[in-house]
Amino acid sequence: MGRNKSSAEEERDNLGVTVTRKEDFSKWYTEVVRKGRFKDQRTPIKGFDVIQPWGYGLWEMIQKAYDGLLKENGIQNCYFPLLIPESFIEKEKEHFKGFEAETANVTEVGSEKLNEKLIIRPTSETIAYNMFTKWIRSHRDLPLKINQWCNIVRWDTKVTKPFIRDREFLWSEVHTAHATLEDGLQQIDDYIAINDRFHKELAMEALVLKRTDKDKFPGAEFSVAYDTLVQDGKVFQGPGGHFLGQNFSKPFGITFMHEDGKKEHVWQTCLGMSTRQIGGIIMQHGDDKGAVLPPAVSPVQAIVVPIIFKGKEKPVMDKAHEVSRKLLKLGVRTKLDDRDFSAGYKFNDWELKGVPLRIEIGPRDVASRSVTVVKRNDGKKSSLMVSQLSKVKCMLDEIQKEMLDNSRRSLKKNTRDVRTMKDLGKSVEKGGFSRANWCGNEECEDMIKDQTGAGIRGSIYGKSEKTFGDCIYCGKKAISVVYIAKAY
Amino acid sequence: MGRNKSSAEEERDNLGVTVTRKEDFSKWYTEVVRKGRFKDQRTPIKGFDVIQPWGYGLWEMIQKAYDGLLKENGIQNCYFPLLIPESFIEKEKEHFKGFEAETANVTEVGSEKLNEKLIIRPTSETIAYNMFTKWIRSHRDLPLKINQWCNIVRWDTKVTKPFIRDREFLWSEVHTAHATLEDGLQQIDDYIAINDRFHKELAMEALVLKRTDKDKFPGAEFSVAYDTLVQDGKVFQGPGGHFLGQNFSKPFGITFMHEDGKKEHVWQTCLGMSTRQIGGIIMQHGDDKGAVLPPAVSPVQAIVVPIIFKGKEKPVMDKAHEVSRKLLKLGVRTKLDDRDFSAGYKFNDWELKGVPLRIEIGPRDVASRSVTVVKRNDGKKSSLMVSQLSKVKCMLDEIQKEMLDNSRRSLKKNTRDVRTMKDLGKSVEKGGFSRANWCGNEECEDMIKDQTGAGIRGSIYGKSEKTFGDCIYCGKKAISVVYIAKAY
Repeated sequence: MGRNKSSAEEERDNLGVTVTRKEDFSKWYTEVVRKGRFKDQRTPIKGFDVIQPWGYGLWEMIQKAYDGLLKENGIQNCYFPLLIPESFIEKEKEHFKGFEAETANVTEVGSEKLNEKLIIRPTSETIAYNMFTKWIRSHRDLPLKINQWCNIVRWDTKVTKPFIRDREFLWSEVHTAHATLEDGLQQIDDYIAINDRFHKELAMEALVLKRTDKDKFPGAEFSVAYDTLVQDGKVFQGPGGHFLGQNFSKPFGITFMHEDGKKEHVWQTCLGMSTRQIGGIIMQHGDDKGAVLPPAVSPVQAIVVPIIFKGKEKPVMDKAHEVSRKLLKLGVRTKLDDRDFSAGYKFNDWELKGVPLRIEIGPRDVASRSVTVVKRNDGKKSSLMVSQLSKVKCMLDEIQKEMLDNSRRSLKKNTRDVRTMKDLGKSVEKGGFSRANWCGNEECEDMIKDQTGAGIRGSIYGKSEKTFGDCIYCGKKAISVVYIAKAY
Repeated sequence: MGRNKSSAEEERDNLGVTVTRKEDFSKWYTEVVRKGRFKDQRTPIKGFDVIQPWGYGLWEMIQKAYDGLLKENGIQNCYFPLLIPESFIEKEKEHFKGFEAETANVTEVGSEKLNEKLIIRPTSETIAYNMFTKWIRSHRDLPLKINQWCNIVRWDTKVTKPFIRDREFLWSEVHTAHATLEDGLQQIDDYIAINDRFHKELAMEALVLKRTDKDKFPGAEFSVAYDTLVQDGKVFQGPGGHFLGQNFSKPFGITFMHEDGKKEHVWQTCLGMSTRQIGGIIMQHGDDKGAVLPPAVSPVQAIVVPIIFKGKEKPVMDKAHEVSRKLLKLGVRTKLDDRDFSAGYKFNDWELKGVPLRIEIGPRDVASRSVTVVKRNDGKKSSLMVSQLSKVKCMLDEIQKEMLDNSRRSLKKNTRDVRTMKDLGKSVEKGGFSRANWCGNEECEDMIKDQTGAGIRGSIYGKSEKTFGDCIYCGKKAISVVYIAKAY
């Protein structure tokens, strides 16, 4: 088959990332997203992008992992309407004021004006909890634990980063209702158990932080979120769980009858995890060649690349097919790249995409009944006999472990104790988390942000860390150790 | 645990369907949907319903089956934006005029007016094909075969039936581009292979009909759709595949370079399958007690119901747990209903929901080391030794087969040849398909619809059936055998 100009153009376009992470982290990230074909931003409306098959494949793996964990916890999937009448929002003003400037409003159908504005969901509390009033009557109906996978629109004016800050994104939103305060708090612990396991799949080490009152989810009693560090030293926020107490059940009137006939408002929680996570994975693990995906969630775990020389096509292709079949049988997500491109182009392409293992098969490999295996995370090459292909599974486990260890080391290394504002300033410049003592006063929180550009991300949830000095800003008695960082 | 009033209310509410299919098919359907907790329509906006966990569970099974078939065919999932600028629609007017009265338009963000109206997708051709112009350069980029699972809004003024006619629904939309006419037509055959297998999973026998020109998808060269008969004698339309030819690639400018350097427009197809299908399943298989779900797609295949007598709780519950564990291990989707309700309530509830097998375990069953198994599709009871539980898998296969056979018989029985308009009138009254000869003239098509209320659904795709007379309306020479029926 001949080559033609357009394909060549495409190849040039796809040869790799043009900047290193050090040179320009932001540009590096955007190039990985585009050239790795995670997402295409060349769409008519800014912030409404196309998630391409490779990015969506990763999302499907993430969904599968998360959905399994939610179901194990007894959370059931359902689907709520896309549109919410404006009047609904009046019911939970404190909650909604966090979103009202960002809503996309439907005001007409065809050419007819609607009587009432309809808002595209920026989150589904109002619509879900309206249904809860119908579904909950008795203690027997509790706990009620539901989730929906859906699209969300938040019209952020500062659309800067694909996946990280989009106007439309996809997510999982869990909503639960419980009979007692204790059951509600237990659900928050369940979320943490779920997200701990989830972060292992992503090979991402996180701090589980209880946000400050100022920073919590609108309408929540408190919020807990997963903060990971990415390679430019900033924080990436992953899934967030929120304890809503009775703050929604009271205005919505979600009550139930106790066994003894007493009526009470339910206790509620919610949890969110979104396509943002894809951005976190890329920024956490990527290197100058592109993305590096954790084997547990990579849509393809092993890419088989035949290296073709004129006259030797058949034995190489036969072997490539045989190896692919064997790997698939072993349960390894495998793809044979038989596209009409050069091997070099293919190497670049799959490195950009972040596939954990590359299996090269050339004429020499055929002769020696072996394959060459290249690890994406550290570039190490080894030779493996075709008869020993089951070792690929161990190698994938090894990569997963190395990536998680790496994330742990990096988080540890980039977290430092600071005692003075001057030290904090220096520490913030280095990036990472600064551990500091705080008096709990919102004014100090604001001043810290003003003076350093970094905010209080919160204190470790469920564990009271011993303070090691007075409030870093005002010098008064500290009540907690907090983690300060710049964040996405 | 005591009972309280609210639970009792709920039980009363859930005791079963109040009308038979014969008495009022439409009311029967709506009650099954509501009481079986497939969907809740008590939402603020008509036609924007909540798909409840049971209905969504069925949708997940349908998705899994369909998604697997699409992926086997090399179709990759991705995600396109929810909103489409009005100007985009100008590019494909013929296509869009089928939707323009039904679009929900976003005209403001927060309190700010937008410069251009944004339309919530009623389908995604325009946005997808705009991306195709960027993704396709060379013959090497073809075929391009993508799918998205997403929500769709079509603001139908006649919102009559949950699932069947909603304003928001969920679907799969496949879009493909090919280098040649032949490749495009082959893709239509691939769709048929996919949908044949899919309909076996749903135990639904269908006619694969090529729609008349009048009835084809807006902008398509031709449309092929799956028509099944439901129990009131009307047609339910399932997935539809559309051959678009170059009708979209020309206005959108989707071209590619051949190997020889010649530039050409791509050939395109699309395919849709939606949550409508849930309605089809219920209307096809249900009986007077509720839904009857095909084992292949039922979220729960076997429901274990312990029958508790005072003082005998423990041995019964122990056995129920043991049986559930064993069935799960055998790969049967099993649920143990340990809710604090009476066995009678549970029987009704799961019959409404349509679970294929009920496994009853009472004190007598414990004593005889057996379980009582009840088939949902025909109510037949049998006793099974716990040691022989693997037979449950055969029973599920048997039910699937019986349901498909039943659907086949019913389709055959309710399809009759008609030669005169008078016969057609009588046949339409009976319900089902009427086979007739047609001259191909649109005026005759219109008159048939006007006089009988039933429309021409099309002719068998890919098979030229021999005519058996002249055009049923005008008496001129017939060119094809068509199937006439009333449809949802």
